[in-house]
Amino acid sequence: MIVIGEKINGTRKAVGAAIRERDVERIKQLARDQVEAGSTYLDVNAGTPPEREPDDMVWLVNTIQETVDVPLCLDSANPAALKAGLALLKKPPIINSVSGEKSRIEGVLPLALEYRTSLILLALDDTVGIPDTSEGRLAIVHRLVDMAKQGGLKEDQLFIDPLVTAVSTGDKNALLTFDAIRMIKQAYPEAHITCGLSNISFGMPLRSLINQTFVAMCVQMGLDSAIIDPNDRDLTGIIAAAEMLMGQDKYCQRFNRAYRSGKIGPKIK
Amino acid sequence: MIVIGEKINGTRKAVGAAIRERDVERIKQLARDQVEAGSTYLDVNAGTPPEREPDDMVWLVNTIQETVDVPLCLDSANPAALKAGLALLKKPPIINSVSGEKSRIEGVLPLALEYRTSLILLALDDTVGIPDTSEGRLAIVHRLVDMAKQGGLKEDQLFIDPLVTAVSTGDKNALLTFDAIRMIKQAYPEAHITCGLSNISFGMPLRSLINQTFVAMCVQMGLDSAIIDPNDRDLTGIIAAAEMLMGQDKYCQRFNRAYRSGKIGPKIK
Repeated sequence: MIVIGEKINGTRKAVGAAIRERDVERIKQLARDQVEAGSTYLDVNAGTPPEREPDDMVWLVNTIQETVDVPLCLDSANPAALKAGLALLKKPPIINSVSGEKSRIEGVLPLALEYRTSLILLALDDTVGIPDTSEGRLAIVHRLVDMAKQGGLKEDQLFIDPLVTAVSTGDKNALLTFDAIRMIKQAYPEAHITCGLSNISFGMPLRSLINQTFVAMCVQMGLDSAIIDPNDRDLTGIIAAAEMLMGQDKYCQRFNRAYRSGKIGPKIK
Repeated sequence: MIVIGEKINGTRKAVGAAIRERDVERIKQLARDQVEAGSTYLDVNAGTPPEREPDDMVWLVNTIQETVDVPLCLDSANPAALKAGLALLKKPPIINSVSGEKSRIEGVLPLALEYRTSLILLALDDTVGIPDTSEGRLAIVHRLVDMAKQGGLKEDQLFIDPLVTAVSTGDKNALLTFDAIRMIKQAYPEAHITCGLSNISFGMPLRSLINQTFVAMCVQMGLDSAIIDPNDRDLTGIIAAAEMLMGQDKYCQRFNRAYRSGKIGPKIK
């Protein structure tokens, strides 16, 4: 599983405050905790107004790169902020994200092509928003993959997000995402498939239980990346188990090692 | 999910003692607890030597039927014990089980046909034991389904168990069960698919975590029955979530009701 640690996000109150106050230690701690917990990438979302965002992105990228050496996932719709961040990166990043929306295709896609970054593609556009069929989502994905490939990106640089809508608003919504994952996996075997998982449980009780069940089922369909809190041990434990059960963990070594090093299972006090 | 409550099993030390000592209250309590927790059937396994088993089965069936009215799943390879139990039943039972083994086909299958019971079919035989390919297991299943149908049972009376072997002894073992479930579902859409889930985690740490992950993935493939401890709230919670996510829970009503009545989620003290 390619884990994109989600916690450095300025739309979270405490993180927003840390960015405003230039609290270097708070951000470094969030970075270290997420890397220690197994993040492959760290998402970086300043979440600030457009005029401040480039400065905040520069400060975040510099601060994070001073303490950890994992690659970053620059999370913004603002070309100026992305460009400022991209200029500083030490490792090949992901850009989060391009969708079928005109502003993203015109503002964000050219940067991904120019810097040859990996890229998250979202299955939505200006016309219908999030299509309520897996075929509708696939149609947008096909268009975006074509553009990215024609621009020079390789299929394995693409992280395709079929999108997740709440099961509370439609009792077939999870099924729709499962179908979309399976179809994307079939159409683009080299591409990665990623999701913001927790949307599934919006409006329901027992959200963690639903999220855990959902991630196991998504892994079975082909999900190989997720934007999550890597410090959520219940979630990372289920992911480790699901990958093992899918035959992706030779001799169950990764699962056993994660257990022995205390990364999954009940936390040792 | 058709839940077959597994706890009245004489091979468990405390239950074996309760059977020997004719501890009526202990057995009734096990029956009531499992029905209260949502069992569709109760498994009844005396687990005693052949010469004692018919008497013990009679005592168990009578004791259980005095306190609950769910149907039973008579769990024995001993035709005399099954016959003694079958004569007493108030509701159509399941017989657990027939396999490709000669003794089961000759001793158990005729009783299922005579009494027209539902029947668990196991994908193993005398020649190879448990085949280590999904195709091998399917071949046995085809043979057993043919015999059961030719004997007059309907497809929806069959509970097909593709068998589960430990992931610790083969890192593709779960995958093999997933494939077998999918193939059985396709070949026999009216039949039920059942499993003894906990074998998957034998020899591994964090067995509950692995079992929970496994059941969600089995439900996604088509599992609609399981022989489990219905009082294991973590497991039943995952099952409720998995069925909801598979679009089998209209307006998420069953999940919400189970939550509100305290049947899933953290136990209220």
